[in-house]
Amino acid sequence: MRLPSSLRALAESLAKLPSIGPRQAIRLALHVSSLPREKQQALLGALGELSRVSRCVECGFPHEVSGDRCEICADPNRSARTVMVVEKETDLLSLEKVGRYAGRYLVIGSLPRGGTLSPEQQQVLARRAKMAQDAGGLDELILAVSATVAGEHLAGAVTAAMGGAARKVTKLGRGLPRGGEIEFADEDTLGYSLDSRH
Amino acid sequence: MRLPSSLRALAESLAKLPSIGPRQAIRLALHVSSLPREKQQALLGALGELSRVSRCVECGFPHEVSGDRCEICADPNRSARTVMVVEKETDLLSLEKVGRYAGRYLVIGSLPRGGTLSPEQQQVLARRAKMAQDAGGLDELILAVSATVAGEHLAGAVTAAMGGAARKVTKLGRGLPRGGEIEFADEDTLGYSLDSRH
Repeated sequence: MRLPSSLRALAESLAKLPSIGPRQAIRLALHVSSLPREKQQALLGALGELSRVSRCVECGFPHEVSGDRCEICADPNRSARTVMVVEKETDLLSLEKVGRYAGRYLVIGSLPRGGTLSPEQQQVLARRAKMAQDAGGLDELILAVSATVAGEHLAGAVTAAMGGAARKVTKLGRGLPRGGEIEFADEDTLGYSLDSRH
Repeated sequence: MRLPSSLRALAESLAKLPSIGPRQAIRLALHVSSLPREKQQALLGALGELSRVSRCVECGFPHEVSGDRCEICADPNRSARTVMVVEKETDLLSLEKVGRYAGRYLVIGSLPRGGTLSPEQQQVLARRAKMAQDAGGLDELILAVSATVAGEHLAGAVTAAMGGAARKVTKLGRGLPRGGEIEFADEDTLGYSLDSRH
């Protein structure tokens, strides 16, 4: 006895998604197959709607608006002379919530396991650097990477690929987070907070 | 700035699936939206194929074969006088791999949080009990539930709902698992293994 082939095929598709293991994929496929037809249709419909989404040619963020740029990159009030490089779309959303940044973004993705940028990432950075150069160069390139070893590596790689197009390359500040008690802060955080005291 | 509405709608659909939280749902929606169109189509296709799956009227296991019964329930070599109740489809698959059981199954689902069977589960059990009674009653009803408190509760509820249709109600044996060392076994397991010594 095995699962029907359509269920196995769906589980295999699902197992290819990030953070979904083969057992979870089987459970999900079984769950979806047990849903009433109208709920299956709703899921199919939601997936189908993705055909309306395209990626902004400038920053890579998904958008549905007409034209080839997202809301931010099409906004004349957002300075094109500052670019903030983020790893993930959700990082961009978190940073936008702060409401203090009036420049543009570039979503670059995680650094692959090997620690070097993928050819696609190199291409995106080279294209964006050229776009910036053609417009007279950037005033500032902000590396909004996580305060982790992987983040540092990504920052290094992005600087190497695109730093030449900017007069200044900066990184997000580090130190004690809100509510952070000195007693419980690790040494690196305390070191940052000392270096960036004000 | 927010995610495009189609991405948010997909994330909301995904967040309704078991074991997928809202953040993972957003990550998944973003990932799927960044896939090339042909991979999105493949996923859509796999989901669409689920329309070929139906549930066996006798045991509830999904099947694609014509007719209203699955392979096992349609197999004249599998005794209809023994029914093994399992919680999940994957439990059935694990038990079938052992290759020692020649009866039928009934997939009943987990016991809801409140600890009492849902009206749907009650209905499935009542229908299956009637089917068994009409055929002269079962020789044996096997409760293949996990060796957990939740499993015990489920076993109790199933016995109450369907035990009357069987001459004998049994549970899977308990004791030391393969490779289990006495030194590391917990008291309950050792107690089971003493009770079931042979």
